[in-house]
Amino acid sequence: MFESAELGHKIDKDTYKQEEAQLRQDLLEAQYELGRRADFPVLILLAGVPTAGKGEMANLLMEWLDPRHVATHAFGAHSDEERSRPPMWRYWRALPPKGKMAILFGGWYAGAVFETLNGAREAVFQREIERIAHFEKMLADEGVLVLKFWLHLSEPVLDKRLKKLSGDKLTAWRVTDEDSWFSQHYDKIIERSRAMLMRTSSADAPWRVVEGADANYRALEVGKQLLSAMRQHLARRSVRQSRVEAAQIIPPVDGLRLLDTLQLDQASTDEDYKERLEALQGRLNLLTRHPQFHNLAVVVVFEGMDAAGKGGAIRRISAALDARQYHIVPIAAPTEEERAQPYLWRFWRQLPTHGRLTIFDRSWYGRVLVERVEGFAPVADWMRAYGEINEFESQLDDANTLVVKYWLAISKEEQLARFQEREQTEWKRFKITEEDWRNREKWDDYVTAASDMVDRTSTPGAPWHLIAANNKSFARIRVLEILCDTIEKRLGRKEKKARA
Amino acid sequence: MFESAELGHKIDKDTYKQEEAQLRQDLLEAQYELGRRADFPVLILLAGVPTAGKGEMANLLMEWLDPRHVATHAFGAHSDEERSRPPMWRYWRALPPKGKMAILFGGWYAGAVFETLNGAREAVFQREIERIAHFEKMLADEGVLVLKFWLHLSEPVLDKRLKKLSGDKLTAWRVTDEDSWFSQHYDKIIERSRAMLMRTSSADAPWRVVEGADANYRALEVGKQLLSAMRQHLARRSVRQSRVEAAQIIPPVDGLRLLDTLQLDQASTDEDYKERLEALQGRLNLLTRHPQFHNLAVVVVFEGMDAAGKGGAIRRISAALDARQYHIVPIAAPTEEERAQPYLWRFWRQLPTHGRLTIFDRSWYGRVLVERVEGFAPVADWMRAYGEINEFESQLDDANTLVVKYWLAISKEEQLARFQEREQTEWKRFKITEEDWRNREKWDDYVTAASDMVDRTSTPGAPWHLIAANNKSFARIRVLEILCDTIEKRLGRKEKKARA
Repeated sequence: MFESAELGHKIDKDTYKQEEAQLRQDLLEAQYELGRRADFPVLILLAGVPTAGKGEMANLLMEWLDPRHVATHAFGAHSDEERSRPPMWRYWRALPPKGKMAILFGGWYAGAVFETLNGAREAVFQREIERIAHFEKMLADEGVLVLKFWLHLSEPVLDKRLKKLSGDKLTAWRVTDEDSWFSQHYDKIIERSRAMLMRTSSADAPWRVVEGADANYRALEVGKQLLSAMRQHLARRSVRQSRVEAAQIIPPVDGLRLLDTLQLDQASTDEDYKERLEALQGRLNLLTRHPQFHNLAVVVVFEGMDAAGKGGAIRRISAALDARQYHIVPIAAPTEEERAQPYLWRFWRQLPTHGRLTIFDRSWYGRVLVERVEGFAPVADWMRAYGEINEFESQLDDANTLVVKYWLAISKEEQLARFQEREQTEWKRFKITEEDWRNREKWDDYVTAASDMVDRTSTPGAPWHLIAANNKSFARIRVLEILCDTIEKRLGRKEKKARA
Repeated sequence: MFESAELGHKIDKDTYKQEEAQLRQDLLEAQYELGRRADFPVLILLAGVPTAGKGEMANLLMEWLDPRHVATHAFGAHSDEERSRPPMWRYWRALPPKGKMAILFGGWYAGAVFETLNGAREAVFQREIERIAHFEKMLADEGVLVLKFWLHLSEPVLDKRLKKLSGDKLTAWRVTDEDSWFSQHYDKIIERSRAMLMRTSSADAPWRVVEGADANYRALEVGKQLLSAMRQHLARRSVRQSRVEAAQIIPPVDGLRLLDTLQLDQASTDEDYKERLEALQGRLNLLTRHPQFHNLAVVVVFEGMDAAGKGGAIRRISAALDARQYHIVPIAAPTEEERAQPYLWRFWRQLPTHGRLTIFDRSWYGRVLVERVEGFAPVADWMRAYGEINEFESQLDDANTLVVKYWLAISKEEQLARFQEREQTEWKRFKITEEDWRNREKWDDYVTAASDMVDRTSTPGAPWHLIAANNKSFARIRVLEILCDTIEKRLGRKEKKARA
């Protein structure tokens, strides 16, 4: 991986001057084209050996490019707002929108190498690497151009540089403790980095290792790689077409789908409904005041056919909670800023901090439900969404964020009855629209899509709860029971851990 | 102020039940209308005496309303991201977009009362109050419906409640240290609060004091006040018209405007330009590595006619900085999310944290320049913007955020020459559009607007720097000189303070 970057690459001054002028103009033109089309963003990661020129390279890129459309991000210690969310949250925040560029120092790789060298277990390192691979795959699939540069120096060159810097009073401040530490453990760090680079080099986002010793060579190498990648990406026109044509899954050949098998009519619990509801709400309220709850965040997801009772169930939950503790997010069409980002971005920005709940009225599952059925997303996009969603929820789980997902299931007849009731009740009339009737025509496609969704995204950490909802009282009680049980179980686990 | 809220208001159970059902339906309808029209947001502030029912009231409102479109915010200690920006930043973050509602506990009042009781000087308290009054005036002018409720209890009632809660093992945890402290200093706190309420009660956002002892009375009172205010606001249709017709300032009768008086052609500094530029960039770089700089944020604002050289000047600044330290914000048309918020919101969200610089290529001054000239903003809106902007910049100043503002001034002939050059140079052609030529026709209106702008927004804390820019080299050198001088002066002041 690093062999070719220890050859002593060099570019003389005259060649550099000549080539730089042209490169600069070409980059500026590519950047202008990127901004004009605004259909993908460019993400540049700068990692590597200390003093190999990461900072200088970033400064130079900002000089070459129009800096008004390039953001830079360095990631130090986590802020307290970051600490209370999954580790990847800070990188989601730093993603540039379509048409713009960003330079990230180290990016999501900084943590992985450090942790492993500080004695984290191999399994932790491996998982982090998998997570990164997933993330970059998602970015590539969303059209983001990711360019990863490792600026390299051999051990003797690094040592010489550090010695020279330390020896001069004017530059000694530039040598940080981290730099010295790197130099002392050079072999071990490089070995680890090599493994990481190899594992995370993909066709979509390969690592580009660049020898950092000669500033001219480094600059032209990075600049030309960037230019070439941008031009290639700008030239890709038929991507979307191939994504539409991707092979899609078909319903089971015998026509029997998971959601067809549910027993939707459940015995009424009307006689003791009020009592049971109040008891469950009291229980939920106590759970959110549990001493361990401030270390836990809860994400509740509601999906289901129109008029399945999502709103009613949500109100039965929120009525049990303190208004300061929860936030309800109704999912409508994405805004302009959200459309300029990868699909899951709009949900990342809504994640609760610890001690709080966020209830989603429809969710990221829209990708594999409405967007699949209506053809809003190309086949390849919703097909990959299953894996992306599982990865997303697993990150939440790791960050002490509980994910509780409900599918409220009603029959087609029950939906009709509810639609009619809405049309006849004055203050409910705004709840029924033309679109609801149109969706109803595609009932069967939705059943297929929802069955696939449950199959492919029900995980031990975040299982789907299928709720028979023809009987509203029954459904609400079940929703609350499951929520209480799930939180209780997790708090119990935390308590045990705290005691141990 | 509190007299009528110690009368022992009471509503019996039957009346409550009957009225609540109707109120609930009416509120839901008003909320639906609010969401459908989406032309203003509703902000509800709940403040008052402990145990007077702030939490209960918020929970009840969430039950009555469709909670999916209401956000609640409680403000505890500042997070580290909040601490590094002006105190009002956290409230700007919490503003609901048009069509939505938010409930804020205490809101921007919480700090003011506490500080003054903890011994802050009277002047500090007064300034905070002025700041709040400004903020609420701005919100009202932007069409935000602000409802401020003070839930009140007399001293004996408060004492009785706290005693009862403390006496019961099951409820003792509800009495916080803050509550006890309030009860011990009841008279003093109430006296302060009364002063504050009186000073900040305005026609647009009056305080509504509600006796909190009886839950039924409290609920109906708050609910009906809210309903009435929402209905009145929804009924206002002709607001915009009256804002267009507001009286506007006219150019000086003798036609002599500030910007006409500048000497735009300055002796060339070409022979020693490169040297001086490098020296200044070196100086700026050193300043940003000054030990006190991590406590300072810098906001740089560039305004000027098209082709005045803003981009070039910005690049001469950014070339001196480390890419990790600065962020350039080019101002284009606001996004959908930005249009759903008060005018200044989009700039608040871009503020730098301490240790960093943000450079605005065009800025909030668009309100009094392009929006005024093109008639995009009603007269009353850009007329009030001068005051709002001064207030905004004074908050930045207080939060150790330096504001450095440049107007790059060129002559009409110079602009023509630059436009023609752009059209003739291949890689500059994208920089010139039809719009630039159209703006040029309104040259005179822009000069008037810019002259007024300088007159009305040049403050000791954030003066305008008028830069003669017909000569590009001269302009760039001046821009850097001024930036260095300003930062140096501020750092010197901080150092003196640190030593003292």
